[in-house]
Amino acid sequence: MFNSKAYALGANRSCIRELFEYGRSRAAVVGEENVLDFSLGNPSIPAPQAVEEAIREILRQTPSVEVHGYTPAGGDMAARDAIARELNRRYDWDVTPQELFLGCGAAPELIAVFRALAVPGGKILAIAPYFPEYAPFVEESGLEFGVVPAQEPDFQIDMEALEALVTKNTQAVIVNSPNNPSGVVYSRETLQKLGALLEEKSREYGHPIYIVSDEPYRELVYDGTEVPFVPAIYRDTIICYSYSKSLSLPGERIGYIYVPQKATDGAALYAAVAGAARSIGHVCAPSLFQKVIARCTQIPPDLDSYDKNRRTLYEALVAAGYQVAKPQGAFYLFVKAPEGDGEAFSQRAKEKDLLIVPGKDFGCPGYCRLCYCVPYEKIQKSIPIFRELIGKTH
Amino acid sequence: MFNSKAYALGANRSCIRELFEYGRSRAAVVGEENVLDFSLGNPSIPAPQAVEEAIREILRQTPSVEVHGYTPAGGDMAARDAIARELNRRYDWDVTPQELFLGCGAAPELIAVFRALAVPGGKILAIAPYFPEYAPFVEESGLEFGVVPAQEPDFQIDMEALEALVTKNTQAVIVNSPNNPSGVVYSRETLQKLGALLEEKSREYGHPIYIVSDEPYRELVYDGTEVPFVPAIYRDTIICYSYSKSLSLPGERIGYIYVPQKATDGAALYAAVAGAARSIGHVCAPSLFQKVIARCTQIPPDLDSYDKNRRTLYEALVAAGYQVAKPQGAFYLFVKAPEGDGEAFSQRAKEKDLLIVPGKDFGCPGYCRLCYCVPYEKIQKSIPIFRELIGKTH
Repeated sequence: MFNSKAYALGANRSCIRELFEYGRSRAAVVGEENVLDFSLGNPSIPAPQAVEEAIREILRQTPSVEVHGYTPAGGDMAARDAIARELNRRYDWDVTPQELFLGCGAAPELIAVFRALAVPGGKILAIAPYFPEYAPFVEESGLEFGVVPAQEPDFQIDMEALEALVTKNTQAVIVNSPNNPSGVVYSRETLQKLGALLEEKSREYGHPIYIVSDEPYRELVYDGTEVPFVPAIYRDTIICYSYSKSLSLPGERIGYIYVPQKATDGAALYAAVAGAARSIGHVCAPSLFQKVIARCTQIPPDLDSYDKNRRTLYEALVAAGYQVAKPQGAFYLFVKAPEGDGEAFSQRAKEKDLLIVPGKDFGCPGYCRLCYCVPYEKIQKSIPIFRELIGKTH
Repeated sequence: MFNSKAYALGANRSCIRELFEYGRSRAAVVGEENVLDFSLGNPSIPAPQAVEEAIREILRQTPSVEVHGYTPAGGDMAARDAIARELNRRYDWDVTPQELFLGCGAAPELIAVFRALAVPGGKILAIAPYFPEYAPFVEESGLEFGVVPAQEPDFQIDMEALEALVTKNTQAVIVNSPNNPSGVVYSRETLQKLGALLEEKSREYGHPIYIVSDEPYRELVYDGTEVPFVPAIYRDTIICYSYSKSLSLPGERIGYIYVPQKATDGAALYAAVAGAARSIGHVCAPSLFQKVIARCTQIPPDLDSYDKNRRTLYEALVAAGYQVAKPQGAFYLFVKAPEGDGEAFSQRAKEKDLLIVPGKDFGCPGYCRLCYCVPYEKIQKSIPIFRELIGKTH
């Protein structure tokens, strides 16, 4: 007499986790250096030195009961204030601390937003390729999950396909740019077209269709690529942000939700997000790290090592004849399986101790995802294997 | 078009929070020292020195990507191992690290367990007086919430009332001892009777009725009072633990769930709890504090100041003629309103800048809760006011 859906979610690990754990056990057999594990998006660059310094300073300067005590549910005001100021400086915008809700990373933040938008029959759309956890997050929040097919080969948004899927039940469209798994950044033009379409559809159906912008990779971009600030393009945008990647703090579970007051029903929506967070056990974001964020929100990540990996791998794959959308952000690269079957390709790679995740769960079964946040030597080691897998022998 | 239930949860703050925030604003007017705020259970003793030392040592000894990186969803093995060893040492038991699931504090842990037990028609019982958040936690998990009336004046468990409420739909009974709000510790005899009753009912209905033991106050006991280890009394017990109170880390959101393998469906239930946690956005417990716990799980809280407050307040209230169940644990005291109406009593106290929470939301409308985790001077200042409120003028 237990919840069989919860059991299935717990017993069937995600394909990513499964591959990662296979890698761990395989490393015990053949040696760490011989397993080329490109499965998991675990940042490989350390947190900025300023994070450690902030922790030490906070412990020195602030009384323990304040450092580790409860904060308001929406977060410490100093942290919210620092985040708002940084967003306004960067995007010339008007974020206020009251519009921010500090959360425990993108996962519970997205769920709080989905639950806040959960009305009977409501539906949330993701755009392929997409982060697989969106599906259980949306469905367990009581909404229907739909997927807009991918636009190949550039992985921008197929507006016709999207338009065909929007109905009166559509509550929101998830935007994830820089994208996991493709590394593609949606262009300003793409986002403007999306905004125009959703505005029209919102008018047509008489209720807002929100953009839920999932932005853990916003700061991870290369070649000076622009990541447009979505609320400045489309008013009814809610942001879910995480410091997991930008400050290399994935295990610390800290980020924020931005619910603009000027979005339709903005104030009520903020309350609904807070209530939904409460209903999934949110009390406050981890308090020490709230104080760290207050001091470190303006620190950019040091992307040199990711960028070197990205360029090396991308150029080698293209030279070998692979089809890859050029990754401009995050630390992922989405490669088309030569024979068109991502699972078979992943399996062939696995036999050579190269671990890459089949694209099926990302909504693109013909592809595989590569996380290149690994030591550079592993990138180098992988190249001859990738060449071999596509039939290049020299 | 948003979720009106989530909105209500977010817009209507809990009565505790409301009173606390009134206290903040009132302090700005009459001065911090003149507001006797007994509303919120925010630990007033600092975290043990060993916690700070552990943080510094971890930062010094462990690479950043390991300190702040993702851990397995169930938690770092070193932390789980340390917790298991400490439990076994203390209770002479057989906890294994694989039976522990590190969570972000009692709130999301309880919700994960409730969701794991959510079957159609399922019901969870709490025993009055009870922590008010149980109600939304249970209901938002898709279960019915029921309350066993309080056994006055000792606030042990009224077994007849409980028996009358157990049906074939009962999935679990929540046990919270030391209790919030009464401070009462269930005796071994009480727990044995409860265990015998639930065993009989489980047999009768052909499925287990679990005890969900919510134990954030387990280490906060006085006068050498015994807090029996519930799984040793009743096999089908799941523990939700938090370090919020025992290590004074309420804002850091760290604790664990113990799902014994030998409980009925133990292994499947652990998977269901893990899946339910995933469905509410659990990725891992905050990683730095997992490592802190690995080093500090055996450290007892320093309860001297709470105990002094407790004795002073309890004795003064009894001497003034109040009816109070003797608090043996936690940092709460549950006092009967002289006129039998907790809300009126709270209101009268509020007019004298003494903030105490009406018992209605705890399932006992004739009472008020006092959190005595405040500076001792505020305890002293409150005594003449309590005497005045019951009509004692000298």
